[in-house]
Amino acid sequence: MSIKHPYLLFLGDAPDQLAAKTANGVAQWRPGWCVGQLRLDGCRADVGLPDMTLEEGAKAGAKTLIIGVANRGGKFSPVWQETMVRALELGMDIASGLHAKVADLPAVREVAHLEGRQLFDVRHPNRVFDVASGKPRSGRRLLTVGTDCSVGKMFAALALEAEMQRRGMKADFRATGQTGILIAGEGVSIDAVVADFISGATEWLSPANDPDHWDLVEGQGSLFHASFAGVSLGLLHGAQAEALVMCHEPGRAHMRGLPGAPLPDIADCIALNERCARLTEPRAKVVGIACNTSSLSAAEAEGLMKGLADRHGMPCVDPVRTGVAPIVDVLTT
Amino acid sequence: MSIKHPYLLFLGDAPDQLAAKTANGVAQWRPGWCVGQLRLDGCRADVGLPDMTLEEGAKAGAKTLIIGVANRGGKFSPVWQETMVRALELGMDIASGLHAKVADLPAVREVAHLEGRQLFDVRHPNRVFDVASGKPRSGRRLLTVGTDCSVGKMFAALALEAEMQRRGMKADFRATGQTGILIAGEGVSIDAVVADFISGATEWLSPANDPDHWDLVEGQGSLFHASFAGVSLGLLHGAQAEALVMCHEPGRAHMRGLPGAPLPDIADCIALNERCARLTEPRAKVVGIACNTSSLSAAEAEGLMKGLADRHGMPCVDPVRTGVAPIVDVLTT
Repeated sequence: MSIKHPYLLFLGDAPDQLAAKTANGVAQWRPGWCVGQLRLDGCRADVGLPDMTLEEGAKAGAKTLIIGVANRGGKFSPVWQETMVRALELGMDIASGLHAKVADLPAVREVAHLEGRQLFDVRHPNRVFDVASGKPRSGRRLLTVGTDCSVGKMFAALALEAEMQRRGMKADFRATGQTGILIAGEGVSIDAVVADFISGATEWLSPANDPDHWDLVEGQGSLFHASFAGVSLGLLHGAQAEALVMCHEPGRAHMRGLPGAPLPDIADCIALNERCARLTEPRAKVVGIACNTSSLSAAEAEGLMKGLADRHGMPCVDPVRTGVAPIVDVLTT
Repeated sequence: MSIKHPYLLFLGDAPDQLAAKTANGVAQWRPGWCVGQLRLDGCRADVGLPDMTLEEGAKAGAKTLIIGVANRGGKFSPVWQETMVRALELGMDIASGLHAKVADLPAVREVAHLEGRQLFDVRHPNRVFDVASGKPRSGRRLLTVGTDCSVGKMFAALALEAEMQRRGMKADFRATGQTGILIAGEGVSIDAVVADFISGATEWLSPANDPDHWDLVEGQGSLFHASFAGVSLGLLHGAQAEALVMCHEPGRAHMRGLPGAPLPDIADCIALNERCARLTEPRAKVVGIACNTSSLSAAEAEGLMKGLADRHGMPCVDPVRTGVAPIVDVLTT
């Protein structure tokens, strides 16, 4: 799975900015890969790219139409279908991160076949994986882990990739979720893999590399999330990461989707991640904390981060407010 | 998925006893469900049941032909197909635990459809699961966990079910692997579930029950197995078991399938399983150790079990040599 860019981002009839979260992520992290955005009548989202028709997008060189909008229920709106068919006729592939598959739309599939175009349903792994070997491999790896789901693990990994590349280091973001895959142009939707192959798919995703090359592996879930911890543990073992970054969003009343389930203590979460990670990478260590402090004032955020850094003896950053340079500093000294 | 018994066990042309391991397990644990065994020319396995033709099996009341033999590669031998078609014509369903699907054999599928028979490919979950809720539920549950794969977790759970039922307790074995499913007549092949649903499928498998009813949940893998620990953790969280039984086979040189990977210390394995299990069941505790001592002499086995019991402060049994009564005693006092 390797999605060709440049992209034209399809925002459809997104009722608000949140519905175009996927397009937003792609526009933010890969602006150079995006020629523009395509919005239908009634669209209330805007990711800040030039508005284009399909024809203008094709002329600007777009090779893939990215379905960058999520519907309630993850289905395709019938009004999108005409756009998708026309994009294929204009020479574009289509990539989508929705639960429903583009390839299951008969009209779209037929035109793709006739025109020789590719359809990427990035939530659905399209290859078979081996069982993990657990064997050590060359290259350096960092995995973002978390106290909960949706606390900024993808964002932190992308921020680390950007900071490392800015310093001239060899670094690649390795995507394990649908938005990350559209941003990276490749990856594995790890929670959609058959259970026996979680670690094996992660080994495949972050293969042996140059001794000074960093893979920044996008984490999923949390060892403390009662629904998804199996995925998190499989990732932890498959990644064989020497460095872990603990991601956290302060102020949550309970674990995401589990009313009544308290957030773990960060020290416990660090200890359990390190303990489990050392099965396949004995040097594994949490080297920093990345907080999403968007719900706090600047002063509150600063106080929180200073407190966490002091308590846990490692840098604590907010990738948005402060950047992640202090964590990269730790990795390079 | 509920497989109808009585069964006729098909041993095919199994070259040795090990190839008929599945049939062996069913004959051992559900003798009352089995009318006989069906062996083709050249079969070198024998599970101790009366030999029968398909016609004799049908006359004896067999409702399902169990494919109780494993081929190298998990495929169907062409010579079995004639038997399967004839079984369907005689009114039997077919159940198989192989990787390849019975339902993918066109001739078999067609006859099953014409005759209105069911084909059970028990390694392949045939339903959709919800994500785990993590909510406490009524009933008592025990999960067998392990230091490694294939150390007797299914056997221990079945032995506990038998011992509890012998004492008049309400108890049900809950199967999570293919042989277990054929023995129970139902269950979920948990390592074949999509990663996001490991815990959810386990919650479904062992639902709320009477306050004095025990579910004996078959464990899979090990938290210390670099390939499969994600499955083990998802099971641990979904089972919400108050009691864990640690299964172990002494004398292994390395983790199964992972040369060079040492077995965990049993105390570490107990501690990590308890710690992780308490996320969804705060009372979770390892209450006993079940060893497979088949490679040891009687005196060696006795010494080993006494040493483990003393060191860990809990009963240590070999379900084959000693039975599991001491563990049930702990649960009932």
